[in-house]
Amino acid sequence: MSLLIVGTMAFDALETPFGKVDRIIGGSGTYAALAASNYTQPVKMVSIVGGDFPQEEMDDLAARGINFDGLEIVPDEKSFFWSGRYHLDMNTRDTLVTDLNVLLRFDPKLPENYRDAEYVMLGNLAPNIQINVIGQMSKRPKLVIMDTMNFWMDNTMEDLSKVLKMVDLLMVNDSEARQLSGEHSLVKAAKKIQAMGPKYLIIKKGEHGALLFYGDKIFSAPALPLEDVFDPTGAGDTFAGGFIGYLARINETSFEAMKAAIIVGSAMASFCVEKFGPGRLKEISADDIRARVDEFVSLANFEVR
Amino acid sequence: MSLLIVGTMAFDALETPFGKVDRIIGGSGTYAALAASNYTQPVKMVSIVGGDFPQEEMDDLAARGINFDGLEIVPDEKSFFWSGRYHLDMNTRDTLVTDLNVLLRFDPKLPENYRDAEYVMLGNLAPNIQINVIGQMSKRPKLVIMDTMNFWMDNTMEDLSKVLKMVDLLMVNDSEARQLSGEHSLVKAAKKIQAMGPKYLIIKKGEHGALLFYGDKIFSAPALPLEDVFDPTGAGDTFAGGFIGYLARINETSFEAMKAAIIVGSAMASFCVEKFGPGRLKEISADDIRARVDEFVSLANFEVR
Repeated sequence: MSLLIVGTMAFDALETPFGKVDRIIGGSGTYAALAASNYTQPVKMVSIVGGDFPQEEMDDLAARGINFDGLEIVPDEKSFFWSGRYHLDMNTRDTLVTDLNVLLRFDPKLPENYRDAEYVMLGNLAPNIQINVIGQMSKRPKLVIMDTMNFWMDNTMEDLSKVLKMVDLLMVNDSEARQLSGEHSLVKAAKKIQAMGPKYLIIKKGEHGALLFYGDKIFSAPALPLEDVFDPTGAGDTFAGGFIGYLARINETSFEAMKAAIIVGSAMASFCVEKFGPGRLKEISADDIRARVDEFVSLANFEVR
Repeated sequence: MSLLIVGTMAFDALETPFGKVDRIIGGSGTYAALAASNYTQPVKMVSIVGGDFPQEEMDDLAARGINFDGLEIVPDEKSFFWSGRYHLDMNTRDTLVTDLNVLLRFDPKLPENYRDAEYVMLGNLAPNIQINVIGQMSKRPKLVIMDTMNFWMDNTMEDLSKVLKMVDLLMVNDSEARQLSGEHSLVKAAKKIQAMGPKYLIIKKGEHGALLFYGDKIFSAPALPLEDVFDPTGAGDTFAGGFIGYLARINETSFEAMKAAIIVGSAMASFCVEKFGPGRLKEISADDIRARVDEFVSLANFEVR
């Protein structure tokens, strides 16, 4: 089924305890689309870049089934740039630079052939952009999922409340869920957030896995225990892309389907952190992915007699 | 199969955000034996109390299948007393008082009818006491598991190293695993700890569940997401008791059996935190436990097509 992803395409500079890269391709849209393209093609990308975004990178992504009819290129400006440094535990990071550049004028216009997409992922962007995209769909998609962050809760809560009422699923990390709800207990936080609009809620807990909430049902997905996390950048977006890519492929939006989709997203994210940037995501084969999903089955499977 | 538990029987004074109790029954042995008694009886308890430990409490525990042939009562002294205050997040606590009292002279002598126990749990005690107990067994038990804590790593590491070589399974929390190994990554920590002796390692992660390591195999068990944790005291000991009680009942020590045992232990622990002290553990029925285990199955179960 057709999948539309709205997100950033960017340059990142990264420092981790394992090394440093100055300027590599990043952005929520890039990671999510790369992950999703393993399950469904084309991935209809809505994004904006400057004249500095490399053509060969675009060609490579296009060859992987990512469609750029919805990409705006602003020749005289620069692409979004983010730079960060991870702490030793890899769970916390400092943002060193955020140059919004072209992102300041991001006002997506969906091409006609994008407007009937059945699966829509709204990456972490200003809520008014997310609302704007939903408003351009020609019919209600089967599934709209969104990401957000503390910045939008602090600065544009009114708009964020509006978009929360328009989506089916919100995906946030544990600290974002706590901030949005004002509750420390994630079960209480989930109830409050579900009352704000999204029927489904995924709370990402990094190395501790993820929780899916739907009504009174809860699914707890493990994370793969890793010896080393080389670079966590993009892991959340990769998770989201794998999640919705899988659902688009099987064309199902049930709770059971979402459980499987979380495992697929987690498997994709476990690859993402193995190298700097999206490097590892570009190498993996369908067999690699299947083997990794099987590792999750072994990891979580049990039988109580 | 016969189960022997060495641990404390004590009084606790507790303060949580939900309330306060001055002097209730506690101790690692009490919690572990109560949990285990749901699966196997008798539970052979090795412990020490003062003259102040209430007879009616002992009678109640005995009626639940806990055998006290291995309990030393010191009439003129006081039982071990611990007092703590939990922080708002319930993950951290301050110890207010630790009165070792009779524990200072704890030097267990196993009764003859205890020495052939096949399943042995060594609660969190001085490593030399743990060694002493193992030395009194008439034959090698099928399974010896142990708990420990940072205090013994800081102060009696030499003895701790010895006992680690004598047991099959070590059960610690994540910060203890990191301290013992000097590794932040739990996968690396597990490898180092397994090299110290125990073939099996369980790392407890509180609200994030638990990991079981055996060779290169890993099992990730979820924790039940709870709206409120009323009082976490004893949850770890309850987990351990449920774990080994279940294994003793099915009389199996395979990796697969341990996976199920971790779920049982987690289910028992999820009851423990619902009321102050061991109160809730004394109320639950076999049906309650079965239903709670089923909740864990729903929580963790998935199928990727």
